[in-house]
Amino acid sequence: MKKINIAIVGANGYGGIELVRLLAQHPLANIQVLVSRSEAGKSVSGVFPHLRGSSCDDLTYVTPQDADWSGIDVCFFATPHTVAMGQVRSLLAKGVKVIDLSADFRIKDQLIWEQWYATRHTEPNLIETAVYGLPELNREQIKQAELIACPGCYPTSIQLGLMPLLQQNLLTSDTIIADSKSGISGAGRSAKINMLFSERSENFEAYASAGHRHYPEIKQQLEMMRGGEVDLIFTPHLLPTVRGIHSTIYAKLADTTVDVQAVFEKAYANEPFVSVLPKGSHPQTKSVTATNHVQISVARPPQSDYVSIFVVEDNLIKGAAGQAVQCLNIMWDLPEAMGLTQLAGI
Amino acid sequence: MKKINIAIVGANGYGGIELVRLLAQHPLANIQVLVSRSEAGKSVSGVFPHLRGSSCDDLTYVTPQDADWSGIDVCFFATPHTVAMGQVRSLLAKGVKVIDLSADFRIKDQLIWEQWYATRHTEPNLIETAVYGLPELNREQIKQAELIACPGCYPTSIQLGLMPLLQQNLLTSDTIIADSKSGISGAGRSAKINMLFSERSENFEAYASAGHRHYPEIKQQLEMMRGGEVDLIFTPHLLPTVRGIHSTIYAKLADTTVDVQAVFEKAYANEPFVSVLPKGSHPQTKSVTATNHVQISVARPPQSDYVSIFVVEDNLIKGAAGQAVQCLNIMWDLPEAMGLTQLAGI
Amino acid sequence: MKKINIAIVGANGYGGIELVRLLAQHPLANIQVLVSRSEAGKSVSGVFPHLRGSSCDDLTYVTPQDADWSGIDVCFFATPHTVAMGQVRSLLAKGVKVIDLSADFRIKDQLIWEQWYATRHTEPNLIETAVYGLPELNREQIKQAELIACPGCYPTSIQLGLMPLLQQNLLTSDTIIADSKSGISGAGRSAKINMLFSERSENFEAYASAGHRHYPEIKQQLEMMRGGEVDLIFTPHLLPTVRGIHSTIYAKLADTTVDVQAVFEKAYANEPFVSVLPKGSHPQTKSVTATNHVQISVARPPQSDYVSIFVVEDNLIKGAAGQAVQCLNIMWDLPEAMGLTQLAGI
Amino acid sequence: MKKINIAIVGANGYGGIELVRLLAQHPLANIQVLVSRSEAGKSVSGVFPHLRGSSCDDLTYVTPQDADWSGIDVCFFATPHTVAMGQVRSLLAKGVKVIDLSADFRIKDQLIWEQWYATRHTEPNLIETAVYGLPELNREQIKQAELIACPGCYPTSIQLGLMPLLQQNLLTSDTIIADSKSGISGAGRSAKINMLFSERSENFEAYASAGHRHYPEIKQQLEMMRGGEVDLIFTPHLLPTVRGIHSTIYAKLADTTVDVQAVFEKAYANEPFVSVLPKGSHPQTKSVTATNHVQISVARPPQSDYVSIFVVEDNLIKGAAGQAVQCLNIMWDLPEAMGLTQLAGI
Repeated sequence: MKKINIAIVGANGYGGIELVRLLAQHPLANIQVLVSRSEAGKSVSGVFPHLRGSSCDDLTYVTPQDADWSGIDVCFFATPHTVAMGQVRSLLAKGVKVIDLSADFRIKDQLIWEQWYATRHTEPNLIETAVYGLPELNREQIKQAELIACPGCYPTSIQLGLMPLLQQNLLTSDTIIADSKSGISGAGRSAKINMLFSERSENFEAYASAGHRHYPEIKQQLEMMRGGEVDLIFTPHLLPTVRGIHSTIYAKLADTTVDVQAVFEKAYANEPFVSVLPKGSHPQTKSVTATNHVQISVARPPQSDYVSIFVVEDNLIKGAAGQAVQCLNIMWDLPEAMGLTQLAGI
Repeated sequence: MKKINIAIVGANGYGGIELVRLLAQHPLANIQVLVSRSEAGKSVSGVFPHLRGSSCDDLTYVTPQDADWSGIDVCFFATPHTVAMGQVRSLLAKGVKVIDLSADFRIKDQLIWEQWYATRHTEPNLIETAVYGLPELNREQIKQAELIACPGCYPTSIQLGLMPLLQQNLLTSDTIIADSKSGISGAGRSAKINMLFSERSENFEAYASAGHRHYPEIKQQLEMMRGGEVDLIFTPHLLPTVRGIHSTIYAKLADTTVDVQAVFEKAYANEPFVSVLPKGSHPQTKSVTATNHVQISVARPPQSDYVSIFVVEDNLIKGAAGQAVQCLNIMWDLPEAMGLTQLAGI
Repeated sequence: MKKINIAIVGANGYGGIELVRLLAQHPLANIQVLVSRSEAGKSVSGVFPHLRGSSCDDLTYVTPQDADWSGIDVCFFATPHTVAMGQVRSLLAKGVKVIDLSADFRIKDQLIWEQWYATRHTEPNLIETAVYGLPELNREQIKQAELIACPGCYPTSIQLGLMPLLQQNLLTSDTIIADSKSGISGAGRSAKINMLFSERSENFEAYASAGHRHYPEIKQQLEMMRGGEVDLIFTPHLLPTVRGIHSTIYAKLADTTVDVQAVFEKAYANEPFVSVLPKGSHPQTKSVTATNHVQISVARPPQSDYVSIFVVEDNLIKGAAGQAVQCLNIMWDLPEAMGLTQLAGI
Repeated sequence: MKKINIAIVGANGYGGIELVRLLAQHPLANIQVLVSRSEAGKSVSGVFPHLRGSSCDDLTYVTPQDADWSGIDVCFFATPHTVAMGQVRSLLAKGVKVIDLSADFRIKDQLIWEQWYATRHTEPNLIETAVYGLPELNREQIKQAELIACPGCYPTSIQLGLMPLLQQNLLTSDTIIADSKSGISGAGRSAKINMLFSERSENFEAYASAGHRHYPEIKQQLEMMRGGEVDLIFTPHLLPTVRGIHSTIYAKLADTTVDVQAVFEKAYANEPFVSVLPKGSHPQTKSVTATNHVQISVARPPQSDYVSIFVVEDNLIKGAAGQAVQCLNIMWDLPEAMGLTQLAGI
């Protein structure tokens, strides 16, 4: 079968290099171009010795100017916001599909995007074109898409934790609370004192409680699922782990007699990457480390009308690189799990 | 000044040995008796080499039978529930005051206690006598107490996070959500596969979401603060850290114009161990590691009537041993911070 | 191609369950029997939720008595010592090949084995039959073997770090020092207080400095490589990591003008799983986490006739389960890396 | 008793802020001046929230230019090399004693210093004046000193591990090997990608095996102890812990009948901060975390003429700030443990 020729822009961050790793193990992926200003001229395994011995071992980073786009089928962006929006129009014009792991095309309301990202959106006409790349929600649209806006780590976990309840209108209009905990790789591969090992080991804290950029994205998606307004509180926290997201979600049931366990089991029965745990279980972040799997459990707290939902994912895989590969597989009509069969270790 | 002669029962668990360490540095404490069935005959520093060089270095554990109570002024219990209730009556009769770090006397309603702890309470008459040992709430009663029921780790953090709001009636009757995260020392010093380093490092999960034994204690205390019913959801989680509690608390404001920051700053202005952080800050568990300090911050999430409250403490100190020493200081009319001046390191 | 029918005894320890995970991803492996007394009757994913979604997901553990050996081609033992020696004769008689990850057949001198393991060896006649399963050393013999004695974690790292120098007689007879550091999973999946997270996080120590059971095995192998006596000091230490071995080896060069870097690069040029890093590099344990790869670098300390050798491996993969699968591939004449293509993540 | 008025230059690094913390708990220390260019104008607790509630809580950092030296008795330098050498002459002239935690005055041979630090030494005349601040070695000279060159983390551990053997001439002239492992705070509080939590958690590696700046310092000191040449290999490694040094030292005994345990016990019998563990023990880094204590054990590896010595210390306390306070106490003729009574927790 014909290989897919791939370019990756921003392949030196944690999300980007995980994408390189996944694609190096994907039977039909052929990485041709790796763009990174800061690492241009260096080999992948020179910068990332854990990739010695892989098929991409001796690929060399190039600057954006030196990238050769001939024959490229798809370009991934694993870049800070505003980078993708500057290049996507010309790529689409060349017939290159784009899977954007950044925030540029996730929010449908341009003004809200501009407010939260504090800059002008330079490609407002492409916002509508972009398909939100959450396969469990948008599988059919992803098949036809030219431009995918991949959801990030927190939004994926919270959407998957609430989708069955919102789509089936099982919640009251009371505030939904998403208390999320993320591994530190979510802060990216950049030198910051407060992300040093000596600052984070044996430490835990909340951050951005007055407003995080994922808040409007999550709210938009939950409201779309419900078909109505959603009051949401989203609080991110920093776990002393490299990887993993754990979202604990609290929502009030409209009808407390509903069998929530059954609702979730049915909703995700055919999803290759979403697993609903048996009643009484709690998912562990480690169970999905370095895999594209999501594990969910639900519980009813004592003396309460609420349901508690526990969702774990790997922030860099199902929350970034794996989700992007899953979208690639859907777009190219491949088995959805191709190249995504990794299992977590102990 | 006259030294206080001290016995500790259960001085081989994490809470107990931390108590030994704190009292070894307390200018007026004189540890005379250390009871532990499993370590009887061994020296403290033989079992715990980190205490070599301390004043209690060569104390030897004894069995309960071999304990010599003559001259003892106060006995601490750092034991599983039901141990203290079996001994406290005879100790009080001997004139020995008791500071119980276990759950035996925390819950005022005997039936609720018996339901959650699934055993008979053998000293129901002493339940009323016991003073709940949270200095910030009960300082005056602690002064006079013969028997202290010290609150544990989760309840301390949640009570301190809600006390100003409940006492001043600033919240609606909507459900209060306490999403708490604890270091693993909270699970105690007993051999369990699921508490091995290999199971917990780089891992995070919730537990006991269908009901944790601290739930009725927290509920009782919050209702006492409010003077009315409180709907509460309490979800504990296991952090991959040795120490530390972080409680994230969500509560709906009755009046959203109230200056919550000012309410907290005023409420705790004179508390030696509770610090309210400046607006926009988030407390870190590491800031209070191995100290008796609590740090709190409050925030207003965007587009919401709720307040978010962030509380950190060391589960073994302010959540156990330090709180007990603070109670001791109050009972003996000593400066409240005596022996509790430790500061966290980097 | 015909699948290989597999039984695993002791599939509930860390080495065993990693073997299950690797074989679940191996294109030609068909796990038929999983023996575990303690977990008999439970499903794999019931005990190990991280294996939900794998092909072995719903396999059920059986007791040794209930194991059905019909059609089994090969049996792996991931058990404490003495278990394999009790069963291997009857398995070989049935035509089942055996790959033993335990210590039963690693040491060729029965008396030394009995001295270090403090028990009688009940199958001395099979000791000679057993092939020591280090592919880089014994590839040809492994091809023909019926019974493999797989080397464990420390010995693999130290042998690979010294093999080129000893085989080419490049060292003096001075004492060789192997200062090894291991992740905590090496201590196994059994409940021990000193392996709790609360004991090991932010902690490091040596152990067994007066003699570790791997010492005679390592010495035997190094002497075989040299064809003469080897003075060896081996000191294991416990790293606060789940996985990984790092051996730092110090050996005195017979001829200090030899290009040690070139010696290593040449020796391992064709090895699929051994990578010699460029001069000036140091291997990191994380680079090979959850993979079958070994990374090695060599250095010349200042003002010294010694060479320092740095070797990293994953103790559970190249130091256990992966090495066993590599042997399986060699025995069945499959590509040596089949099912072992995993790459470490960030 | 009269307080000691103190200035600290570089009080924003890990060593410096630990010094602030220790001195904040020292009964006779009065911190008057905290110099830091980068944090000038900020309060200590604004930058380091873990120091809220301490006596130095509201001290404000100043630039070097704004420092007021009137009344200062002693100045500590916790700065990169070359900073102290630029200021010490003028301070001594003002009658201010200097305790330098940096490398400027540790090496007695100016040329060697200049070679390893790759810069000119601008105060060669003060090198001889400086007293090497290792109390166990130089207590008497420290009493009289005006300028102390405090040894750092690795050298302290290795010197204390070898001093009894070298001073009593119990070793052969064979190479001594010091395989040292350090917590990551040793790399300092500066933003580096390779010190991020995501790079270091669950990771371990050696570094600087071709030559570390502490090598000539250690060699100088060991040779002084022996009164003759010492062949030394020193290899530092990075532990995934915040704090702690563990040095494993291998040395060949001249006379293998010597009772090494007795030698160490006698040598350190009167040292307040050095503890020799019982035979068969191994010290743990955690036992001395955040304390000024050193724990040592010795062992005889099987079939060997070597002795193995295991030394643990806290790199930031006995390896930096605590050692400096110990020197201060000696210089001012105070009890040596004043302000250094901290005990490690579990």
